[in-house]
Amino acid sequence: MAQHIVIIGAVALGPKAACRFKRLEPESKVTMIDQVRMISYGGCGIPYFLSGDVSDPAQLQATSFNMLRDEKFFEKAKYVRVLTGVKALSIDRENRSVLVRDLETGGEKTLPYDKLVIATGSIPNRLSVSGAELPGIFTVSNMKDAIDIRERIAGGKVEKAVIIGAGAIGLEVAEALADLWGIETSVVEIRDQILPGIVSPIMAGMAQHHMEENGISFHLSERVQEIMGRDRVSGVVTNRRTIDADLVIMAAGVRPNSQLAAAAGLEISPRGGIVVNEKMQTSDPLIYAGGDSVEVQNLVTGRPAYYPLGSMANRQGRVIGTNLAGGNARFEGAVGSFIIKLFDISVASAGLCLASAEQEGFQAVSGFMAQLDHAHFYPEKDIMYLEMVVEKESGRVLGIQGLGNRGEGMMARVSAVATTMKYRPTVVDISNMEVPYSPPFSSAMDALNALGNTMENILDGKNRVMDANQFAEWWENRMDGKTFFLDCRGWGNAEPFVKKFPDHWKSVPQDELLDRIHEVPRDKRIVLICNTGVRSYEAQIFLDHVGIRNTYNLQGGMAAVKKWGLDL
Amino acid sequence: MAQHIVIIGAVALGPKAACRFKRLEPESKVTMIDQVRMISYGGCGIPYFLSGDVSDPAQLQATSFNMLRDEKFFEKAKYVRVLTGVKALSIDRENRSVLVRDLETGGEKTLPYDKLVIATGSIPNRLSVSGAELPGIFTVSNMKDAIDIRERIAGGKVEKAVIIGAGAIGLEVAEALADLWGIETSVVEIRDQILPGIVSPIMAGMAQHHMEENGISFHLSERVQEIMGRDRVSGVVTNRRTIDADLVIMAAGVRPNSQLAAAAGLEISPRGGIVVNEKMQTSDPLIYAGGDSVEVQNLVTGRPAYYPLGSMANRQGRVIGTNLAGGNARFEGAVGSFIIKLFDISVASAGLCLASAEQEGFQAVSGFMAQLDHAHFYPEKDIMYLEMVVEKESGRVLGIQGLGNRGEGMMARVSAVATTMKYRPTVVDISNMEVPYSPPFSSAMDALNALGNTMENILDGKNRVMDANQFAEWWENRMDGKTFFLDCRGWGNAEPFVKKFPDHWKSVPQDELLDRIHEVPRDKRIVLICNTGVRSYEAQIFLDHVGIRNTYNLQGGMAAVKKWGLDL
Repeated sequence: MAQHIVIIGAVALGPKAACRFKRLEPESKVTMIDQVRMISYGGCGIPYFLSGDVSDPAQLQATSFNMLRDEKFFEKAKYVRVLTGVKALSIDRENRSVLVRDLETGGEKTLPYDKLVIATGSIPNRLSVSGAELPGIFTVSNMKDAIDIRERIAGGKVEKAVIIGAGAIGLEVAEALADLWGIETSVVEIRDQILPGIVSPIMAGMAQHHMEENGISFHLSERVQEIMGRDRVSGVVTNRRTIDADLVIMAAGVRPNSQLAAAAGLEISPRGGIVVNEKMQTSDPLIYAGGDSVEVQNLVTGRPAYYPLGSMANRQGRVIGTNLAGGNARFEGAVGSFIIKLFDISVASAGLCLASAEQEGFQAVSGFMAQLDHAHFYPEKDIMYLEMVVEKESGRVLGIQGLGNRGEGMMARVSAVATTMKYRPTVVDISNMEVPYSPPFSSAMDALNALGNTMENILDGKNRVMDANQFAEWWENRMDGKTFFLDCRGWGNAEPFVKKFPDHWKSVPQDELLDRIHEVPRDKRIVLICNTGVRSYEAQIFLDHVGIRNTYNLQGGMAAVKKWGLDL
Repeated sequence: MAQHIVIIGAVALGPKAACRFKRLEPESKVTMIDQVRMISYGGCGIPYFLSGDVSDPAQLQATSFNMLRDEKFFEKAKYVRVLTGVKALSIDRENRSVLVRDLETGGEKTLPYDKLVIATGSIPNRLSVSGAELPGIFTVSNMKDAIDIRERIAGGKVEKAVIIGAGAIGLEVAEALADLWGIETSVVEIRDQILPGIVSPIMAGMAQHHMEENGISFHLSERVQEIMGRDRVSGVVTNRRTIDADLVIMAAGVRPNSQLAAAAGLEISPRGGIVVNEKMQTSDPLIYAGGDSVEVQNLVTGRPAYYPLGSMANRQGRVIGTNLAGGNARFEGAVGSFIIKLFDISVASAGLCLASAEQEGFQAVSGFMAQLDHAHFYPEKDIMYLEMVVEKESGRVLGIQGLGNRGEGMMARVSAVATTMKYRPTVVDISNMEVPYSPPFSSAMDALNALGNTMENILDGKNRVMDANQFAEWWENRMDGKTFFLDCRGWGNAEPFVKKFPDHWKSVPQDELLDRIHEVPRDKRIVLICNTGVRSYEAQIFLDHVGIRNTYNLQGGMAAVKKWGLDL
């Protein structure tokens, strides 16, 4: 029997659900409404519109074959009726109808439905500090703001910008402003690292250092206390400083837009997300919801989690479309796969970083590794940094993070692990993971396998590591005489350091350790150093064998230390 | 108790097993022998040495930190004794010893072992045709031949080369010869496609077309009958033609080098591979084997398979090293992940292609798809072609293949599926696969998800497809009037074809179908055409809805047809 489906919200999830449903049930009717006129655009493209990479807003609203996804498109190509400029006021579940208002005419009417889809998305968090409503302060959550921002920039009205929040959106926007427009850009973050909750402090430090080299300033562990200005914004005051600004972007995260659902008595999570089952049904089985307005299961923790991502919305939209047509599609949950391009690097992750894992109650440990992405003899190659978080007892993989060049090699490694995570792999599965190999793409023992191997050795207590941060601290305090810095590389690599720091930097190449073991003290802690942490691990094994066990392998080696920003 | 391990073969697997073992049991002794002097080199790098990308053979033998992996290196850095120029003649399992001969002095001696590792690798297949022993005919299975070939090339002695075999090695070598050295290069292949057993005929045709555009000639379905020449090779005679050649490369596959193991009474498979269990133990538990000399389980079919790949050898070597030290490491098997760079494209696969699946007894079906690799609004993007093979009844994923640009995007997609295959995913798992998303790397509905969706629709009978080959045939026979070619794209895309073929190419954009349905005949089979197969699928759904069901959706659209080499 033909149905009438009403969909509230016409970006990402809504259109996907509508179109899938209509392909399965052409005889049924769909009405999709949205408050705004510009619908079905790629919101994830906003930073690229700001940067100028995307020249016209219409590109974000186009299909891949350059048709504008407007009302007419949905009517003619998708057989879906769309009402724009129409706001849903309330849901009458008993009578199965939605009360809507035409925002232009003010006219109200009820739309009856057989099934309803709530695709109301998210609301950007705005700081509630003095001055937060001044002109010149924006979020990047909708096209209207994006167009306003770009007009201001293109009009030459922006010289200094402050981004509040060093999450993905904040960093993408920072790059957009600084790179193409040359705007003096600062990022203020309340936490003590960028990309908090996504990568480790070390990896965050590496990414931050790269962005600083590209002209972005960062102010971490700082709280915005006030936004200054008269007619419009002129600066941002934190607990430590005042930063001049003629543009402020609030990128302090988003929260589910679930008011309509809540008012209709649907179940809402403590965090404010609409509660749905695997079929994406709310507590009312005739009402579906998805995208930025819901929570889904985190497949690592088994607990609800919030993933406001366009990719989730699209996949969930298809699940809803299938189920509206009587299907039995499931959205199992997610591991939170993530990737971002920051100037010339990429940072990616899936699952939990160490801090998140600990917060979730796991007894977790992490390992960090540097290796070339391609065969070492292949001319084109780069060092890739990978980190893995595992549960101590079981060796279960809880997360992977990586930083590499801006190509797709990092995506390949993180994808390889991300897609297996719902099967609960252990470290051994990573050691033997079968990514395709040939010299232009990977190594015979790929970085991913090496990461697994490293982690196995850490869990076995054979590889006892330290990170760049710890190294920096001990190095700074080197005059205390407690630490012996042992460079295990060939003389060519060690020489400049030995010459610069003759009293503190010792060179014994790993392959000469047996003959020169008397040069290694037995009464100090020893930091073992090489380029990436491999030879220093060999050295550690050998020193263990001869009874020198107070050793620390600098994981990621000098490559990681340098990338992190410490230049000895 | 300290052990003495003997390892026969010092390339890839042998060194890996030796070093891992020594890290776990420093107090034990390892003796590794090899017939040749140059050991522990990256054999997969030979094509890149031939091309000149790798300038010196030593680079293939170096570590990533530029130390030469020779006898001295293994002694000093790895504490492993290596004997080169020493051949293993026989294994005395009862007395646990290996009889070896010094190939220089002729002296023989026995090496006692506690445990033995056979890492004898593979033997390249050589055609047994007249002339096959002429000078100027090479395989690319060892550095000696590789150096000889490159010396001939660099000396200007090679103008025309014939490669026998269009597998991975053959194609890599063809590119190496043609690209940098400008040698007129032909590839002869006995099967009717390149990369047989790896990708479908359509994808093979696309790769072949790309290589032809780069100057390589192909002669498929041709059998080499004779190699001509007096003092040295001058040509290759097939059942169809004679091709001039001053260099011939036999790249007709390899087989396990298992003679020594067989002579010692170890179990050998019908194909000639040494039989090992998951611990990589042969039928004698004191003897391990791995790499190119063994068979392992194909995780898709559950049957033994042969994977002569450096990546397998390395991972298996580590498993053996662990087990030699009393560990319990397992090598479960493999799905045969594969990737190759061919000029400006990459071709990758994992699991079974359709032909292999059918050969293995599966009731299989495949689906083919074209989509942009990145968000369509992101400036840098390319069309990516993906194919999936599934079991009809269960929807179980049996294989994935892909062709894209030379970046790592294809590796990302194939890795994402490859690593899950041992968990037996179904099409639904691909539809909802969680690869990291942001516009510079992927799409909100990534190509991989779209592939899963396409496959679901094919299995459901909603998407009824045809491939480029079928299209070409019907197009060639268009004068028979049986087929109606319906271009569902916008007029701008369709116009040049309509003007060129006014009697046979009809344009009705998908979004005008409802109004112009009378232009679509009900008495002909209808080929639905768009750029990539998406709008034509929409058209198919609509035509079904109005009762026109004799339709064929051209999968991959005009993009695939063109890439395949058909230029209308």
